[in-house]
Amino acid sequence: MAPAMITPESSGTNTPTTITATKLTQAGIQHMLPNSNGDLPNLGALDASKMAVTITTAPRTVPEWNGAEAKAQKTCTDHMVTARWTAEEGWDAPEMKPYGPLSIMPSASVLHYATECFEGCKLYRGYDGKLRLFRISRNCARMRNSAERIALPDFEPKELEKMIIALCARDGPKWLPKDRAGCFLYCRPTFIGTDSALGVQRPREALLYVILSCFPDMSSSLATPAPPAMQGKADGKPKSSSGLKLIASREDTIRAWPGGFGYAKLGANYGPTLVAQGEAKARGFDQVLWLYEKENWVTEAGASNFFVVIREKTSGRLQLITAPLTERIILEGVTRASVLELCQSRLAQSQDGVEGLEVVEKRFTMDDLLEADKEGRLVEAFAAGTAFFIAPVALIHFRGKDIEVPTDGGEAGVYTRLVKQWLVNIMYGKESHEWGVVVDEEA
Amino acid sequence: MAPAMITPESSGTNTPTTITATKLTQAGIQHMLPNSNGDLPNLGALDASKMAVTITTAPRTVPEWNGAEAKAQKTCTDHMVTARWTAEEGWDAPEMKPYGPLSIMPSASVLHYATECFEGCKLYRGYDGKLRLFRISRNCARMRNSAERIALPDFEPKELEKMIIALCARDGPKWLPKDRAGCFLYCRPTFIGTDSALGVQRPREALLYVILSCFPDMSSSLATPAPPAMQGKADGKPKSSSGLKLIASREDTIRAWPGGFGYAKLGANYGPTLVAQGEAKARGFDQVLWLYEKENWVTEAGASNFFVVIREKTSGRLQLITAPLTERIILEGVTRASVLELCQSRLAQSQDGVEGLEVVEKRFTMDDLLEADKEGRLVEAFAAGTAFFIAPVALIHFRGKDIEVPTDGGEAGVYTRLVKQWLVNIMYGKESHEWGVVVDEEA
Repeated sequence: MAPAMITPESSGTNTPTTITATKLTQAGIQHMLPNSNGDLPNLGALDASKMAVTITTAPRTVPEWNGAEAKAQKTCTDHMVTARWTAEEGWDAPEMKPYGPLSIMPSASVLHYATECFEGCKLYRGYDGKLRLFRISRNCARMRNSAERIALPDFEPKELEKMIIALCARDGPKWLPKDRAGCFLYCRPTFIGTDSALGVQRPREALLYVILSCFPDMSSSLATPAPPAMQGKADGKPKSSSGLKLIASREDTIRAWPGGFGYAKLGANYGPTLVAQGEAKARGFDQVLWLYEKENWVTEAGASNFFVVIREKTSGRLQLITAPLTERIILEGVTRASVLELCQSRLAQSQDGVEGLEVVEKRFTMDDLLEADKEGRLVEAFAAGTAFFIAPVALIHFRGKDIEVPTDGGEAGVYTRLVKQWLVNIMYGKESHEWGVVVDEEA
Repeated sequence: MAPAMITPESSGTNTPTTITATKLTQAGIQHMLPNSNGDLPNLGALDASKMAVTITTAPRTVPEWNGAEAKAQKTCTDHMVTARWTAEEGWDAPEMKPYGPLSIMPSASVLHYATECFEGCKLYRGYDGKLRLFRISRNCARMRNSAERIALPDFEPKELEKMIIALCARDGPKWLPKDRAGCFLYCRPTFIGTDSALGVQRPREALLYVILSCFPDMSSSLATPAPPAMQGKADGKPKSSSGLKLIASREDTIRAWPGGFGYAKLGANYGPTLVAQGEAKARGFDQVLWLYEKENWVTEAGASNFFVVIREKTSGRLQLITAPLTERIILEGVTRASVLELCQSRLAQSQDGVEGLEVVEKRFTMDDLLEADKEGRLVEAFAAGTAFFIAPVALIHFRGKDIEVPTDGGEAGVYTRLVKQWLVNIMYGKESHEWGVVVDEEA
């Protein structure tokens, strides 16, 4: 980043801007530094305490849990929270208002230059009757990093967290009622460039918003059967019927590259994967396993992080392995971090008949997996992310070869099950843990 | 692509779809093949002849040519043309209607997954009084390729061309009147995924639209002066004051990658460049010169293609060089293709005192440029694209070193001027040429 300067420059006005100290938090003062546009200091910091609330007069019916409407993924709750930013004024006061369409100019930056980033998190209804978010501060901090990468304005992550909590507190009681213990809503903070200037430039207007959506339980929705016309085909047809079926990405398609933006949750990382994903689904697979470079480094599975449990060749020790963040081509998943931390603290030693394992972030290739499979050292594999949660992997198809991953008789291996259970316990309040953030519901 | 199949599969209905031959063109029949979603054949082909027209009742004032309003790039003409597509019905009849905001659901695919692509072209008011588009069929064909890459539906490019021409015919006479010979409007065909389902999947609803915008003449808008705080700094400050000033991209920032999507005009190629572009502007440069890999292959200049004229080291022949399309990391610019074709046909031999040159598409590095500069073999450089047109390059800053490119006394070198003049002559009707497509104006 260019060094920050206080002097206003190349602005439309010559009037110096007075900084009202009482109005600004520390983060707010940071916002007042000119951005890369050479803009005037931004006056308004994002401030959830200023939120204006308009309650819907047309409340809608809550769909059945995991039913057809939820599976369509088009139903959001009664309200949304929005906050507008302009280069001239900074952040407006956030608004909670009835959920409904946005009015966006046809020339808006987001529709042309993909100036957009998002987050995915869930609101859980605990078995103790409480609503919880999971490590929500991590999502908000990552959203700020994503915004920086895609030239959207800065904000204090804690204020976004308050906006998310306010929406969950408002719509959670109705849309995720107490009789739905063990169920969730999907929360989608979104940030888009709404500047209507058509030039290729940093947006000078943006909208940050949060919506809550009725989502199916994707951790239980595995591969759809292959289309009838494909079922006679031997090559590339998954054989196993349980657990995720992955197909390795083709040599001519990569998801992310060093110097790109694979680490940030940008729209630009998702749309370009849809063709490969569609081809995978048409062949009866669930997701693409994204490889990288001619060495076929294994990176991510679909839009989830990817883990394997392998018995190390020389030491004979079990290792839980996932790709490292160092090259910035991997999304720093909240679930990923939690899996690593839980396994480090709870599986370092063998106990209760479960063999301990070493947690390793390192690069590994398809050849490593093929060799481990051949030598009987591939123990388990799973994908980890918010949408698919912890999903056991049953099969990896790689250029004519199939790796059938052990799933302990069709469900999931012991480590996959342990990790999933630990997280479920925290998310749904069976275990009291600082990662589970209780949302106080509105009366 | 998966092989096309006629059998409907995994659809919501069991009713076989009747194909009405009279309704469909050959392209329409192609549309009826299932797409990668395994959708039902699409009934409606894009058909500009079905366009419904609603004329605005609130016509607006046309801003001054190249004035402040045009420079803000927010003003579009009175109308726009839209066409909606759904997986269930195919293409609706296009509509011409008053320009105004789009109503887009907060969960729409385009706002989250960057399912978007666009085109850029211009409508020119000729010195002979006629309106022209330039090689518009190339833009429409490229738009179809971009749509395929970003999982948006297929369409017949000729129908998009008709939509563009209809809008130009309607709004051109008023917004680009006959007393503005030598001026243009900027035309932006845009295609976005409007599906409100939040899952990461191919959009099952999309909107194709065309808008016409009042744009400044960017070929004459060069570097803004460095900010006052920077003017004392020696390092990285452009010294020359005319022609584009480029700064080579940093090692940790790459625009496009083989296996990615640099060749397609996707939003996902633009947003992620804005931070680097903002840093370049803050340092007083006009654009980033995008390099690739540790060899520092030279690819594009900002959002334009990049050309150099170099005297070849061994043969001593002049060469016009630009990066090749083979790796699919370079946008196949319409201006790029036209420059190559014009120089091939008109500059192969020396004539009228201008030395002939060889036209070469090949990879070249920053070291090649530095060496040519040092040895006095770097003759000219220019960027070529629709927005910036043919823009001479005066300076390239590359990690502490400056290459001052000859510009023939401050304006542009002879080849840059020739190419620009030839294109101007075709665009504005001074030379009758098949690339200039005359638009018949509505009375």
